[in-house]
Amino acid sequence: MDISAVNALSYEDFVNTFGNVVEKCPVITAAVWSRRPFVSLNALEAAISDFIDELPESGKEGILRCHPDLAGRDLQRGTLTRESRQEQAGAGMDALTSGETERMARLNEVYKKRFGFPFVICARMNDKANILRQLSESCQNERAVERARGIEEVKKICRLRLQSLLLTDGANKL
Amino acid sequence: MDISAVNALSYEDFVNTFGNVVEKCPVITAAVWSRRPFVSLNALEAAISDFIDELPESGKEGILRCHPDLAGRDLQRGTLTRESRQEQAGAGMDALTSGETERMARLNEVYKKRFGFPFVICARMNDKANILRQLSESCQNERAVERARGIEEVKKICRLRLQSLLLTDGANKL
Repeated sequence: MDISAVNALSYEDFVNTFGNVVEKCPVITAAVWSRRPFVSLNALEAAISDFIDELPESGKEGILRCHPDLAGRDLQRGTLTRESRQEQAGAGMDALTSGETERMARLNEVYKKRFGFPFVICARMNDKANILRQLSESCQNERAVERARGIEEVKKICRLRLQSLLLTDGANKL
Repeated sequence: MDISAVNALSYEDFVNTFGNVVEKCPVITAAVWSRRPFVSLNALEAAISDFIDELPESGKEGILRCHPDLAGRDLQRGTLTRESRQEQAGAGMDALTSGETERMARLNEVYKKRFGFPFVICARMNDKANILRQLSESCQNERAVERARGIEEVKKICRLRLQSLLLTDGANKL
């Protein structure tokens, strides 16, 4: 799907196609439809990024809170979104040893208790060891630092999801 | 559930309970968790309302775009959220004559083409005839007027959903 096809989408088709590029936040996709036409994929990505940057800090924390834990309850129960399931599986989150699962669960709880939002990382750009290390280190950070780091990860995830939709799935779907 | 029980909820339980008080916008609920503690139901409602008011106009349009058409495809396909299904049924949207269905569909299309977002109205505060009349009249309005009217309806819907959760379902669930 090229960008002119994207620009021709009704808001309903646009949200149906791109509504989960920011996890469980279709309102962000729905909002940036107002900024059409986009000159490129990068421009669409920039519009999403700008919208997120203009939110109050509570809104950024809200975005993080819409993300599932890594190797958490949603993965175990099969209630992850399609995108998250693929990303977590790609980073080996569905194939942890029992010791790793326990360590991940413990660190996720420490992190959420400290910050009031979950640890978010672009799983497709990291492997299991790297994720565990960064989660552990992040537990020591300040809240504002973690909020900003998490939002940068949200943007990386968004970029990769947009690319997947525009370069592969999206072309078949529309 | 009283407000102290609400204030004691983890962000995960808070979003699971109240995540759809603004249709398909759990990020709004997730954001206002940052503003705890709430002194009352009214304070929680005000926090949501304030968050919406502070969004850019594109964000408000995004909220409207997350709403289904009245008596539209989602109702026919059974893909409405639980809350929307109950509300639309209460206003008789699931029992239109074929003539009414056709008129509603035609007006919805006119409205969406004109404004780029769907007609939103608090179904629980209106009946079938009233909804059809207001939809028809709204098609003549200016975009900014309709955006503002729609957002006020979103807030009415939110208030009634919050009340339902806090006064009935919510008390049983938690």
